[in-house]
Amino acid sequence: MAIPTIVWSQNHIRIIDQRKLPLQLKFVTCKNVSQLWRAIRTLAVRGAPALGAAAAFGVLLGLKQIKTKERKSFDAQIKKLCHYIGSSRPTAVNLFNALDRMQCILRDHPDASVLKARKLLFQEAMAIFEEDRWVCRQMGIHGAKLIKNGSRILTICNAGSLATVDFGTALGVMYSAKKAGKKFKVFACETRPLLQGARLTAWELTREKVDTTLVCDSMAASLMAQGQIDIIFAGADRIASNGDTANKIGTYSLAVLAHYHRIPFYIVAPEMTFDKNIQSGKQIVIEQRDGKEITFLAGKRIAPLGVKTYNPSFDVTPHRLITGIVTEKGIIRPSFKKNIYKHFIGHDR
Amino acid sequence: MAIPTIVWSQNHIRIIDQRKLPLQLKFVTCKNVSQLWRAIRTLAVRGAPALGAAAAFGVLLGLKQIKTKERKSFDAQIKKLCHYIGSSRPTAVNLFNALDRMQCILRDHPDASVLKARKLLFQEAMAIFEEDRWVCRQMGIHGAKLIKNGSRILTICNAGSLATVDFGTALGVMYSAKKAGKKFKVFACETRPLLQGARLTAWELTREKVDTTLVCDSMAASLMAQGQIDIIFAGADRIASNGDTANKIGTYSLAVLAHYHRIPFYIVAPEMTFDKNIQSGKQIVIEQRDGKEITFLAGKRIAPLGVKTYNPSFDVTPHRLITGIVTEKGIIRPSFKKNIYKHFIGHDR
Repeated sequence: MAIPTIVWSQNHIRIIDQRKLPLQLKFVTCKNVSQLWRAIRTLAVRGAPALGAAAAFGVLLGLKQIKTKERKSFDAQIKKLCHYIGSSRPTAVNLFNALDRMQCILRDHPDASVLKARKLLFQEAMAIFEEDRWVCRQMGIHGAKLIKNGSRILTICNAGSLATVDFGTALGVMYSAKKAGKKFKVFACETRPLLQGARLTAWELTREKVDTTLVCDSMAASLMAQGQIDIIFAGADRIASNGDTANKIGTYSLAVLAHYHRIPFYIVAPEMTFDKNIQSGKQIVIEQRDGKEITFLAGKRIAPLGVKTYNPSFDVTPHRLITGIVTEKGIIRPSFKKNIYKHFIGHDR
Repeated sequence: MAIPTIVWSQNHIRIIDQRKLPLQLKFVTCKNVSQLWRAIRTLAVRGAPALGAAAAFGVLLGLKQIKTKERKSFDAQIKKLCHYIGSSRPTAVNLFNALDRMQCILRDHPDASVLKARKLLFQEAMAIFEEDRWVCRQMGIHGAKLIKNGSRILTICNAGSLATVDFGTALGVMYSAKKAGKKFKVFACETRPLLQGARLTAWELTREKVDTTLVCDSMAASLMAQGQIDIIFAGADRIASNGDTANKIGTYSLAVLAHYHRIPFYIVAPEMTFDKNIQSGKQIVIEQRDGKEITFLAGKRIAPLGVKTYNPSFDVTPHRLITGIVTEKGIIRPSFKKNIYKHFIGHDR
């Protein structure tokens, strides 16, 4: 956790290039907004909380192109900028929540000069960045209580330091448990098609000396049937008001399997991942990605020409399959609709 | 279905090299038993029924090395040969059932000369080969009745012409339905780690002009949740007396998901795939394969050094999750223990 996934440095965004892991630890510097847009779209940076920070920093990058000294025009250009950044990926709500916060700060200070508005935007972006660091550690503390000595944990995709500023959501819980001296084992689903489990989760867990076993996604059920899994932790890209959770494709599959095998299934996500504007998962837009992610591997064709593909980046796990949602304010348990409201009420940014 | 997967030709075994598909349609010629053993172990030829034919032809290859004219010594050498062929892969019972049949023919003719015994073995191997062709077509006829016009079918791995002599088990059912004029859609799970779904099933289905969509294994649940799957067909590597079925890793996962979504789940397998010597799936030996199948892709490392792997080639689907088993004699339905016995009784080779 020494190297942050994303930082604002010398007027640029520096990110770990996750497309190159685990073979190479390289960085990408985004000097303008279109470079950032591309970095998000091609998954050089990914993970809902990291996308929140990326979006906020993206606004700071965009500021460099805005020359007006007039507030109305300034605000209009920021709005356009936010719209552009938001078009990079549709599902992770942190991205939109961060952009909302940036615009909110302008609405809250209608009389500030452009110079002052710039300063406020900078402060807000830094607040989003710092909050993620704090929030992940808080989720870690709450979630670590669910891990027992000897626990065998299953996870999918990467909900680790690489999905956040520097600590992780689902994996942050494990890092906290480890710090507390608990011994446990992690099974990481490789997470097809882009193998974030194999490339990113296995990389950061082994770096942190966590006992890690990599499995194909299709092997999780076999482990569960043998009684080899005690608890499941997954991250989230968007959580509806009723607890329905969009996360990496395959998460829903694990949730159904966990239900069948009576294994507790937890989501770990901060308040920024909740979309209070939607009532249920049915309203979540699921990003469909290029079929080449399935038909090509390492630049080589693996499927015949002429075959169709279906490549949703996410699926939605209905709340009834979720045991609890670990947030920075504690663990939310069913019934979610009522408890999510209670959990966050009075806490309005 | 024009090109057989495996044939006995000019005293050699010629097989389609499935490691090279879908990019190249190449053949491997096995001139001795160790070449065949290697072809089986490295999955140049795979699929339970194809392995049955491969094992029988393997005995014919081995015959070329046996010089004795004395029956006792001849039988002993055949026994050793069968033991060697059987050591190539532990799970698919067709391999062992074929070897048993070859040895049975010797036991049934204790007084035959070595010359006559050689002739009997040749005839038995050819019978195993021909029976597979007939049996697959019979399963096709019985199973095709389950496919309706407009059916959306899910399958895993390759239970097609490439897994048998030339027609297929689960895919054979689809070929029969197509021949009967039915229109349907197939979703093929890519089947990690070795991608038999992407490489083999997608290849043969698109060649046969079947509407085929390739998905990652983790996407099947999402399709089911959206009501996009009407029926599932899978092959089998070994079926216990109670109906518990070993098949490619990921099959059990689909069966649990099908159960949750109330989707009929069928196994398609000939009598040769039943292991009447075992009472339940607990007795099935599951082959564990090299972790490099998961950590490397197309010769390139995709997971970090130091990560452990778990790589079972098969899983066991308990009979209670199976809607029916399509065999050459019709469809067996629960309760399986009783009905499997009834289905095959009096039919003793």
